[in-house]
Amino acid sequence: MLYSQGIPLERLGIPRADGTSDSVDPRDVWQMFAEHWFLFRGTPTGVWLEHELYELFGVREKLTGDTAADIYDLIASRLREPDFLPRSLFERFNIEVLATTDAATDSLTDHASIRDSGWNGRVLPTFRPDAVFRITAPGWKHEIAKLAAQSGIEIETYAQFVRALEDRRTFFRAMGATSTDHAVVEPYTQRLSDADAERVFARALAGNPDADDQRRFDAHMLMESARMSVEDGMVMQLHPGAFRDHNELVSSRFGRDKGGDIPRATEFTENLRALLNAYGNDPRLTLILFTLDESTYARELAPLAGHYPALRLGPPWWFHDSIEGMTRYRSSVTETAGIYNTAGFNDDTRAFCSIATRHDLSRRVDANWLGGLVARHVIDLADARDMGRALAYDLARQTYKLDRGTRPEAVVAG
Amino acid sequence: MLYSQGIPLERLGIPRADGTSDSVDPRDVWQMFAEHWFLFRGTPTGVWLEHELYELFGVREKLTGDTAADIYDLIASRLREPDFLPRSLFERFNIEVLATTDAATDSLTDHASIRDSGWNGRVLPTFRPDAVFRITAPGWKHEIAKLAAQSGIEIETYAQFVRALEDRRTFFRAMGATSTDHAVVEPYTQRLSDADAERVFARALAGNPDADDQRRFDAHMLMESARMSVEDGMVMQLHPGAFRDHNELVSSRFGRDKGGDIPRATEFTENLRALLNAYGNDPRLTLILFTLDESTYARELAPLAGHYPALRLGPPWWFHDSIEGMTRYRSSVTETAGIYNTAGFNDDTRAFCSIATRHDLSRRVDANWLGGLVARHVIDLADARDMGRALAYDLARQTYKLDRGTRPEAVVAG
Amino acid sequence: MLYSQGIPLERLGIPRADGTSDSVDPRDVWQMFAEHWFLFRGTPTGVWLEHELYELFGVREKLTGDTAADIYDLIASRLREPDFLPRSLFERFNIEVLATTDAATDSLTDHASIRDSGWNGRVLPTFRPDAVFRITAPGWKHEIAKLAAQSGIEIETYAQFVRALEDRRTFFRAMGATSTDHAVVEPYTQRLSDADAERVFARALAGNPDADDQRRFDAHMLMESARMSVEDGMVMQLHPGAFRDHNELVSSRFGRDKGGDIPRATEFTENLRALLNAYGNDPRLTLILFTLDESTYARELAPLAGHYPALRLGPPWWFHDSIEGMTRYRSSVTETAGIYNTAGFNDDTRAFCSIATRHDLSRRVDANWLGGLVARHVIDLADARDMGRALAYDLARQTYKLDRGTRPEAVVAG
Repeated sequence: MLYSQGIPLERLGIPRADGTSDSVDPRDVWQMFAEHWFLFRGTPTGVWLEHELYELFGVREKLTGDTAADIYDLIASRLREPDFLPRSLFERFNIEVLATTDAATDSLTDHASIRDSGWNGRVLPTFRPDAVFRITAPGWKHEIAKLAAQSGIEIETYAQFVRALEDRRTFFRAMGATSTDHAVVEPYTQRLSDADAERVFARALAGNPDADDQRRFDAHMLMESARMSVEDGMVMQLHPGAFRDHNELVSSRFGRDKGGDIPRATEFTENLRALLNAYGNDPRLTLILFTLDESTYARELAPLAGHYPALRLGPPWWFHDSIEGMTRYRSSVTETAGIYNTAGFNDDTRAFCSIATRHDLSRRVDANWLGGLVARHVIDLADARDMGRALAYDLARQTYKLDRGTRPEAVVAG
Repeated sequence: MLYSQGIPLERLGIPRADGTSDSVDPRDVWQMFAEHWFLFRGTPTGVWLEHELYELFGVREKLTGDTAADIYDLIASRLREPDFLPRSLFERFNIEVLATTDAATDSLTDHASIRDSGWNGRVLPTFRPDAVFRITAPGWKHEIAKLAAQSGIEIETYAQFVRALEDRRTFFRAMGATSTDHAVVEPYTQRLSDADAERVFARALAGNPDADDQRRFDAHMLMESARMSVEDGMVMQLHPGAFRDHNELVSSRFGRDKGGDIPRATEFTENLRALLNAYGNDPRLTLILFTLDESTYARELAPLAGHYPALRLGPPWWFHDSIEGMTRYRSSVTETAGIYNTAGFNDDTRAFCSIATRHDLSRRVDANWLGGLVARHVIDLADARDMGRALAYDLARQTYKLDRGTRPEAVVAG
Repeated sequence: MLYSQGIPLERLGIPRADGTSDSVDPRDVWQMFAEHWFLFRGTPTGVWLEHELYELFGVREKLTGDTAADIYDLIASRLREPDFLPRSLFERFNIEVLATTDAATDSLTDHASIRDSGWNGRVLPTFRPDAVFRITAPGWKHEIAKLAAQSGIEIETYAQFVRALEDRRTFFRAMGATSTDHAVVEPYTQRLSDADAERVFARALAGNPDADDQRRFDAHMLMESARMSVEDGMVMQLHPGAFRDHNELVSSRFGRDKGGDIPRATEFTENLRALLNAYGNDPRLTLILFTLDESTYARELAPLAGHYPALRLGPPWWFHDSIEGMTRYRSSVTETAGIYNTAGFNDDTRAFCSIATRHDLSRRVDANWLGGLVARHVIDLADARDMGRALAYDLARQTYKLDRGTRPEAVVAG
């Protein structure tokens, strides 16, 4: 938002890709942020942050250029209190499960540390293999080397690659993971023959795969990931439709994933057909679909989720994780799919302090929506109570199979 | 909905394509349905069925696993009463016209029986020639043989095929039909030259048409159907955009049209251009467009219907025949097309008992929408009264030309 | 609307392309319009015209067939009063700036007359070069001849063509223009090499460019127009997505631009990428995007405008310049882009008397939207006041750079 209004990222202290960064005083950044706080009026960021400032940090003044310095001091002093240490907040937020997203090649040593620390908080990894599927990316062979090292499996063929993936999934499950995550531009699915898969993989290892190889490999690896989920029970999440690093100036100067991701129209009906015909009727699979293209809610996603046993719709994602976005989602999805083919609320924030706020917002929006249904006699009050609990809690717990064990150790079986 | 939550279709007693079916007790199916009734919370099925149970069957308890058996008994006993025979319900529902959808090859003997029975209820056929247009379908030649038999016209050329179609349309009109219905995946229209049409038809008869032949033939037959409608005055309905039998497991085990139809994005502006340029300015044609892709309401359909004299927009269809769907339709379509370029409400339910309920729901939604316009001074109360009547009654009666004769006999002219 | 209900354009006195027209009495046209006034119930035209009749002309009766003649007389007599002369209305409407849209080849003599008249009203031209970019249009070479004549630059090469455009832009700026306007079917952008641009231009001059030449030339000229805007500071407006003259009967009988323009689905994320990567981070560029495809609001346009410094979103356009259209726009755009990446309200009406009405409507809709945010505690009342002023006034004034000079003379610098 600040960048869109002409404020250079350097002035926010964002480090450049070459490792350098402008020296900025955090107080000055906060001051500038406060002076531009009006830009966030009517946005979810505006709503979340005001709620956090008031509820979490006890700020009682409106954030402006004039109040910025006092509020900075107050937040800084709060953050030095023991009650504001991450584990204290985790408990104050009443978090039952927090899941991180981790590369397939991650050693999960931080997760091991948490486990070994004796702390009771449940923090789970999530298996996200995108980097080892991206055969045309510059660093892909490096990723494959890491995958081989972590799995202890030499990777010179596609078959070995698959075994290494399966090995890592087993390890992730032993560390408590209950789900995987997959980001693709287009949710195209199509199985390659074993021979074709080997040929594409060989071209990738030889360093000359083309865009069509990538498209076919992505489509095939979604099939394979679904097959593995059928076998090991990991819930599969699919996040399609983002054009990453749209702004080359930003990505070349500051590196990848620094903003400028722009959604594209997304097609599910044709693209998911191969996967759903292979695995969509299998009760062992749970596939959670997310979208950035709201025109697919009522047109494609609700009809698909209202039919295939394996499908659940994820909550409104990213730009649509907002009051109006949630409202559109409920009104577009529910009449065809009901609420019991949705995954309940979960949030993919990186801002730890916003977790309770975001859940609070989601619950208010859902409660308001349910209240509207009661007022119009579409449901009665008893239904609304059940549905409210399902949307806020039960559906997420059940969809992500969080009851398989109460502690990660319980799922080591493998 | 039940299938999406893991209940096999066999347990509902659905017969398989091979003619076998699991033996199930209807009471057990009803019990299972009642225990899963919560899945329909917030859906139109939930709203319709509760209304029917209360208003039509006099059920005063909420449907649950505990009340299922009693409610089953009550419904079963009601259905044995003379007041619940179809013709009694037809009159109680105050139905003026009910239209069935019939294959081009249908003998319409049931319609003849109704006519000959002396009963006064007006039940009309609708001419739906899809099966004889589907040249790549396995049973197509059989359909053509039936068409030849019914029309008494030998069909060895495209020209004969067209004559047979025209003959059947004349027969349908004599039996009271005022409209035709056409389902296509994509509403592409384009006229073939006579020679090309003959060539495609010959390839189809020879048993080797390809997908492109099918696409061009579909596009051409929409043109020809519009041409015939211009000549014989039958109202043409177009229902595009459903990917039929998406789930191959279901369609192979239980046969076609057993669920799993999923919408796709649909394009009208380019696709309909040939047809509209040929016939869209002709006052003799009424073409009613339906869609499953709501993004086309404001973008394409309302501008088209707000311009071409021949066009009317059908009511929200299928997944969108719902409270929120109707609300989105009114708010997206009206400002560009007004209400007088829409076809009013009609419903394509196969559930006879739901007819009055669905009309009731539609009228409530429209009344609520009109009330909102009055409250905001967009229209006045006198306007609202006129519009309410038009939406509920006049527009459907006029658009479907139901006043051409009060009894089928009156339209035999041909 | 009248045409869509079967009223021939001839009966409205619309002249045909051959210069003839049916002789109609304006009173009869008004009478027919009044008798069909009910068609506009619930449409923006209905709302606007009732507001104009009441507020501007003082009509106190509802327009019907019965009241038509009296209202005609009242309007006719009002229009003879000095208070209803255009400059009086301009002042009564409290218009600060009115911008016309003018061909690149326009001499702007009317603008010069206004300037020379001593009147204080600020009426600015807008540079719209579409006609000289349309290399496949029949009259293109004539347009190029006019461009050469107006600029005094011989145009036999692409380089000369660009120089002539730059010359005209300088002249427009001297006449007070602060913006340009560009209409394309598809907002595809891609730079041609100088050699390729020359080759395409040479093929166009030789009279044999093809559709692909047109597409590439359009894409290139959008790049060049942005480049020129970076250099001369003119705000660039892009209006994509209309299929012009969809109805060939109307356009062949009555000429181009007589209605029948139908929107198509529009893609921005891929199409604008080249332009935004070249100029989107440049603070000297302001590019205002409009759309007829509302599905792009939340999916593409708000994320783009919420990122690129050069982008602003224009207000809801054409079919969507309506109560529901504005409401959808605010609820779809704001959460991602905020309001400060939008251009505020402006209207492209050709109906002079509707200007105040349309601004009034927009302000009411925005005020109602802001009130809803206040009621739900998303913003506070002080925020709402600032935002209301911004939406109604400040954003348009700032986005269109209307403060660069208070009088056209001030911007002659060039």
